[in-house]
Amino acid sequence: MHVAIPLYPRFTALDAVGPYTVLAFAPGWRVTFVAAEPGPVTDDRGSLSLAATASYDDVPDPDVIVVPGGPGTFDALADEALLGWIRRAHGRTSWTTSVCSGSLLLGAAGLLDGLRATTHWAALELLREYGAEPASERTVVQGKVVTAAGVSAGIDMALTLLARATDEETAQTVQLAIEYDPRPPFDAGSPRTAPAGLADRALRLIV
Amino acid sequence: MHVAIPLYPRFTALDAVGPYTVLAFAPGWRVTFVAAEPGPVTDDRGSLSLAATASYDDVPDPDVIVVPGGPGTFDALADEALLGWIRRAHGRTSWTTSVCSGSLLLGAAGLLDGLRATTHWAALELLREYGAEPASERTVVQGKVVTAAGVSAGIDMALTLLARATDEETAQTVQLAIEYDPRPPFDAGSPRTAPAGLADRALRLIV
Repeated sequence: MHVAIPLYPRFTALDAVGPYTVLAFAPGWRVTFVAAEPGPVTDDRGSLSLAATASYDDVPDPDVIVVPGGPGTFDALADEALLGWIRRAHGRTSWTTSVCSGSLLLGAAGLLDGLRATTHWAALELLREYGAEPASERTVVQGKVVTAAGVSAGIDMALTLLARATDEETAQTVQLAIEYDPRPPFDAGSPRTAPAGLADRALRLIV
Repeated sequence: MHVAIPLYPRFTALDAVGPYTVLAFAPGWRVTFVAAEPGPVTDDRGSLSLAATASYDDVPDPDVIVVPGGPGTFDALADEALLGWIRRAHGRTSWTTSVCSGSLLLGAAGLLDGLRATTHWAALELLREYGAEPASERTVVQGKVVTAAGVSAGIDMALTLLARATDEETAQTVQLAIEYDPRPPFDAGSPRTAPAGLADRALRLIV
C-alpha cells in the first residue's frame, strides 16, 4: 500500500508523524510526504522541518491519504493546489483519512457532505460548514473516509485503519513494535475530563 | 527552557516527534534539532527526513536533552561525537532524557551507572551492560535522568517531565491542546498484554 501525507506550512508535526510511524512500520506499506513542491516544510512551532520528497503531481493516485491538521489548516483551506489534489486522489484511494483539523480540508474538498466526522475538539462545530455531522469520537469511519480527533489521535486512527486495511494481527504487531501502551500521567486529554478553565489556556497554545 | 534533540541516521521518527510536540507546545519552551552537522537526517524507514538546524557545537548547553532511539542506535553507540555531546551537555542540563533505545546512548555516555532505567521492551536487558538496572515501566525518573519505554512512550515521558519542570497544570494544558486522550483499538502495546507469538513478529518490523 502506498500512503501519501501532504504537508503544508504550519502543520502540526505529531498529526503527520503519528500515523506515519504506524503505517510505515506495516509490512509492505510505504509512505511518501508530498507538498506543492518537494522540499522542507516547516511546522506550526517554526522549529521542525519535514522533507516532502514529491510534488502533488508526482503522486496522483496513492492508495491512502492522511491529511494532517494544524494552525496552518485555516490558510490551507484556500490552497486550491492542495484541495484539488485531495479531491482527485480521493477518486482513486482505498482510504481517505485526516487527523485533527485536517478534516476541514477534506470538507473543503467536498468529501464530507452528509458524513459523520471528527476533528480537534476546538474545531468540531466548524465541520457543519461542510455538511458534515460533528462526532466527538476518537476515530470516525464512514466508508473509506476516516477522520481522527486532535493531534495525538492520529496514532489511534492509523491503527484502526491498518486493522481494516489488513487484519487485526498486523495492527497489533505494529502497536507492539512501537510499544503503544499509553500511560498518560494525567486524565486531561479531553475537555470532558480536563480541569475547569484549562480549555481556554489550551486554545492559547494552539493558535 | 531550551530543549535539544539529537538526530542520527535511522532514528525512529515518533521517538523524536512525540516529545518534541509536547515540549514545543509548552509556553516559553523551544526545541532545536541538532546533529553532527546541520541538515536533513533520515529515519529508520528511509522515508522521513527531519532537519537538524544546528550542530552539536552550536548547542553546547541546552537545559534539556531528549535522545531518541531507533535501529540506528546500535551504530550510534560508536559515534563519539554524539556520545561526547551527550556527556558534556549532561554536565549542565536540568534534565537529561531518552526515548526507547536512546537510553542505551545515555548508558554508553556513562550516565546510567547505578541508576534504574527503561527502554524498548526488546532492549531492556542491554541496559545492564551500562551498569543500569532495567525497569519495565513507562517512564523512569532518577534525579534529573528520565528514560522512557519504546517509541510512543516519549509522549508520556515528556508530559511527566513537563509537570516536574513546570507544574501539573502546564502539562495538563499541553495534554489537552494535543488531545492526548489515547484510545488504542487493541490492548497489544506491551508484551504483557499482546497475543502470544506477536513479539517475534514485532521484532522483525523493528530491525
